[in-house]
Amino acid sequence: MAVASSLRLPSLANLLSRSRPSTVLRRSTAGIRPRRSERGVYALSTAASTAETEDPRALLRKGSKGDDRSITPRSQDFSGWYLDVIEHAELADYGPVRGTMVIRPYGYAIWEAIQEYLNVKFKETGHSNMYFPQFIPYSFIEKEASHVEGFSPELALVTIGGGKELEEKLVVRPTSETIVNHMFTQWIHSHRDLPLMVNQWANVTRWEMRTKPFIRTLEFLWQEGHTAHATPEEAEQEALQMIDIYTKFAYEQAAIPVIPGRKSKVETFAGASRTYTIEAMMGDRKALQAGTSHNLGQNFSCAFGTQFTDENGQRQHVWQTSWAISTRFVGGIIMTHGDDSGLMLPPRLAPIQVVIVPIWKKDDEKSRVLSAALSVRDSLQSAGVKVKLDDSEQRTPGWKFNFWELKGVPLRIEIGPRDVSNGSVVVSRRDVPGKEGKVFGISMEPAILEAYVKDKLDEIQSSLLEKAKIFRDSNIVDVSSYDELKSAISEGKWARGSWCASDQDELRVKEETGATIRCFPFEQPKERRPCLMTGNPASEVALFAKSY
Amino acid sequence: MAVASSLRLPSLANLLSRSRPSTVLRRSTAGIRPRRSERGVYALSTAASTAETEDPRALLRKGSKGDDRSITPRSQDFSGWYLDVIEHAELADYGPVRGTMVIRPYGYAIWEAIQEYLNVKFKETGHSNMYFPQFIPYSFIEKEASHVEGFSPELALVTIGGGKELEEKLVVRPTSETIVNHMFTQWIHSHRDLPLMVNQWANVTRWEMRTKPFIRTLEFLWQEGHTAHATPEEAEQEALQMIDIYTKFAYEQAAIPVIPGRKSKVETFAGASRTYTIEAMMGDRKALQAGTSHNLGQNFSCAFGTQFTDENGQRQHVWQTSWAISTRFVGGIIMTHGDDSGLMLPPRLAPIQVVIVPIWKKDDEKSRVLSAALSVRDSLQSAGVKVKLDDSEQRTPGWKFNFWELKGVPLRIEIGPRDVSNGSVVVSRRDVPGKEGKVFGISMEPAILEAYVKDKLDEIQSSLLEKAKIFRDSNIVDVSSYDELKSAISEGKWARGSWCASDQDELRVKEETGATIRCFPFEQPKERRPCLMTGNPASEVALFAKSY
Repeated sequence: MAVASSLRLPSLANLLSRSRPSTVLRRSTAGIRPRRSERGVYALSTAASTAETEDPRALLRKGSKGDDRSITPRSQDFSGWYLDVIEHAELADYGPVRGTMVIRPYGYAIWEAIQEYLNVKFKETGHSNMYFPQFIPYSFIEKEASHVEGFSPELALVTIGGGKELEEKLVVRPTSETIVNHMFTQWIHSHRDLPLMVNQWANVTRWEMRTKPFIRTLEFLWQEGHTAHATPEEAEQEALQMIDIYTKFAYEQAAIPVIPGRKSKVETFAGASRTYTIEAMMGDRKALQAGTSHNLGQNFSCAFGTQFTDENGQRQHVWQTSWAISTRFVGGIIMTHGDDSGLMLPPRLAPIQVVIVPIWKKDDEKSRVLSAALSVRDSLQSAGVKVKLDDSEQRTPGWKFNFWELKGVPLRIEIGPRDVSNGSVVVSRRDVPGKEGKVFGISMEPAILEAYVKDKLDEIQSSLLEKAKIFRDSNIVDVSSYDELKSAISEGKWARGSWCASDQDELRVKEETGATIRCFPFEQPKERRPCLMTGNPASEVALFAKSY
Repeated sequence: MAVASSLRLPSLANLLSRSRPSTVLRRSTAGIRPRRSERGVYALSTAASTAETEDPRALLRKGSKGDDRSITPRSQDFSGWYLDVIEHAELADYGPVRGTMVIRPYGYAIWEAIQEYLNVKFKETGHSNMYFPQFIPYSFIEKEASHVEGFSPELALVTIGGGKELEEKLVVRPTSETIVNHMFTQWIHSHRDLPLMVNQWANVTRWEMRTKPFIRTLEFLWQEGHTAHATPEEAEQEALQMIDIYTKFAYEQAAIPVIPGRKSKVETFAGASRTYTIEAMMGDRKALQAGTSHNLGQNFSCAFGTQFTDENGQRQHVWQTSWAISTRFVGGIIMTHGDDSGLMLPPRLAPIQVVIVPIWKKDDEKSRVLSAALSVRDSLQSAGVKVKLDDSEQRTPGWKFNFWELKGVPLRIEIGPRDVSNGSVVVSRRDVPGKEGKVFGISMEPAILEAYVKDKLDEIQSSLLEKAKIFRDSNIVDVSSYDELKSAISEGKWARGSWCASDQDELRVKEETGATIRCFPFEQPKERRPCLMTGNPASEVALFAKSY
């Protein structure tokens, strides 16, 4: 790890060696709360952030072109690399309260791109945005038995308001099913009020003991959808529709080849009848639960008396769903695509898709080069490309190359005096290092350059997905016995095998291997094989992996 | 007040008669925290919301066309009317915790329109969005003396996390200057790091005793901008730029003719050197502080040691600003434009700009009418108009007219069998009641109808602003003595007069009349007159009014 990083996070090494208490019996929760593995989970600094520089420039200043080892190599220490990328690419910083995170503009812009896409999809599928208060009476949390069991260990409680001790403690929302049902009960009367389909973009709080920027923080941002339906079929259809939207988002926008499927009973959300998930393989081959969609059945509607009068005049409890994706997804993007040089952003979510670096030595070159760079910028911008011209004079072109590579910008355009004379530019791909990714002599002619850039961005988008797919598939092993499963997991891979064993067996796998059932994938092999654990006939394969 | 409302809010009458403790010595705070007046401030229900119906349809079902008295008449009881509109137009509802509010989809859509406009303006002026954690160590709040004095009475404190008593209480952010400065101190090193200009869209919490939906709630949504600059001139320019953006937004988007100006020392934000404000006159002639922009000077940078090295190598404290607009603004829109029939939305912020009501009696008419209505909808939609076709069969056209008027939709298009035969439609303006606002025989021809609709929407937008301006100007009285001021205020008007008296005099005016200095308007008369209180030469006029 580079010197600056060690200074910045003095306590990491110690924390790494701690083991965490077993929580296997606790049910997993929405989107952002998958099972944690024993290793690789960092605690954020417990004190206020240290005072030394945050600025990646301060660090990179030391480097010259080619010296991009200012961040820990990914292959050497994945977690160290992850934290370095977050710091030096200016994605996030540590908040003053243990486990909290400040999302910096560049990191937030990735979240905004995620929001922009999903928000449209939610509205297209008939959901309206709204806002529920974040303070929930403590008594609400207790109404649904498994919900309180799942969440009570990690609640933040407000006990003082306006200088006075409160009569009832208030929960700072960890998720909103309870308050949503309290309100739904008042809004839903007749079958004509159904379906009721809403979503909110909000912050939520979970008192996590081991935290890691983006992946698991005390407070995080997410969207949570909540719907109520007249029939169980409609609720099931909705839960499936939303996991499908998340899946498409992951593939098409984030270039992450997630595996959608159903959670095991043990891993189902606290309060749900069925949980669907998208599971992503990170660069260290650990699984990340990247989004979830729950069929809540009538669990909350029974607890809160959310009823409607059906077409025959009968009172019925509504059938519900909830579904969420959070800022954790930004962590997933970093850990899927990044490399030793830093971040690598999929073009469709990149805040900056193209960076232009002008190159000159003499003053008379400068004005020619800059004016060409400006007109290239303007033409790309008006073609809808997110472009930045880095014309600062304090940095060398080499420094800029490293910096924007670290920031994961998909394409770089270089313009020097000779290029201007030739009416052409040099284009470099972030995802293809060195000379291989560099193409000389692309015409500056707006129509030609725009088409070329858009084409390249599409190519990079596909290429990132393809690379991630190959990586994923080469790290999933089909197993037919527990021994094979253990050996796959010990090699750091995912194991896929037929499973119809008990919850106890599932927990035993976790205790003995550190791996959990990530999901029963929707895509199942045609051939049926006996359960890897019991040898009994099994109807499904499950995916096992260690996870974040 | 209508029966349904009385049922819904049983405790309002009692609460109305209570007087509130004097808080004149407390400094006012950002955007959403102006001084409160003695009357007209409601407490939200203290218990969980009552169980009876929320659905305006349940209420309106009783009414027939012309019977629009299902909401309290505005002229009869402004506050009762305000609460009825919020309930029946489905803008918001009461949360289970005292003083909290659920923002329902229709109300939230207005907030989204506000966000959409401002977000673009903020980015155009060089600000980046980001996110700071909402939990702030209690010690941070104590660092800036007047800040803690202003905010400590209304803090919500988290004292328990993860089942354990916390060592240091955490403040749920009432505003973020302290945590922002804590982070700025780590990010700012050199003059090259300046200006640093960020914004966040977030929820904030203030433990208010008297609450009113949108206007003052325990938790509300806002944006808060925070900037740091190298010179006091730049900070002042930024604070003025942002109040100018707010002013333009109010005039051009919300059709609210706010008066921009400077707050008196007494009314300045807790921690600011200078506060700029936009003051709006509501329909009951009370003032609403609708947005504020603060020049923070070096108050927070000194408290938090936020320094930079200037071009001469000297260490300097940065100069800062902060500025905010909140969901309170939605309340301002309701109270500026609404009438006895309900909400009246300015077209540029209306979630639905045009509602189409098809009218038929016989079955053979139905298909012709509906198919014409659909094609009108599609052509308007593709022209960028926000249009809704209300083709439900459970309601009569008359019921629909009332309902969409209550919801404040600017334009209604009626299509009946005869209209279809004539190839024309009927267009009604929400802001011009009865026959006067109704035009027959507008061609269905897409190009003609689109142009007509867009033209009418523009006309309504201007007309709402014009009407509000006339109302505002006819309710501001120029005064030259304290007696004249008192008599203007007692008539419910605003008083404008020259002022150079002391803070004590200002507080005396508040105690004796209930009015405060809303601002020293930027627009000042050319002629100078002696101070209305002291008779001394004064360089400025101040605006006095009772306020929310």
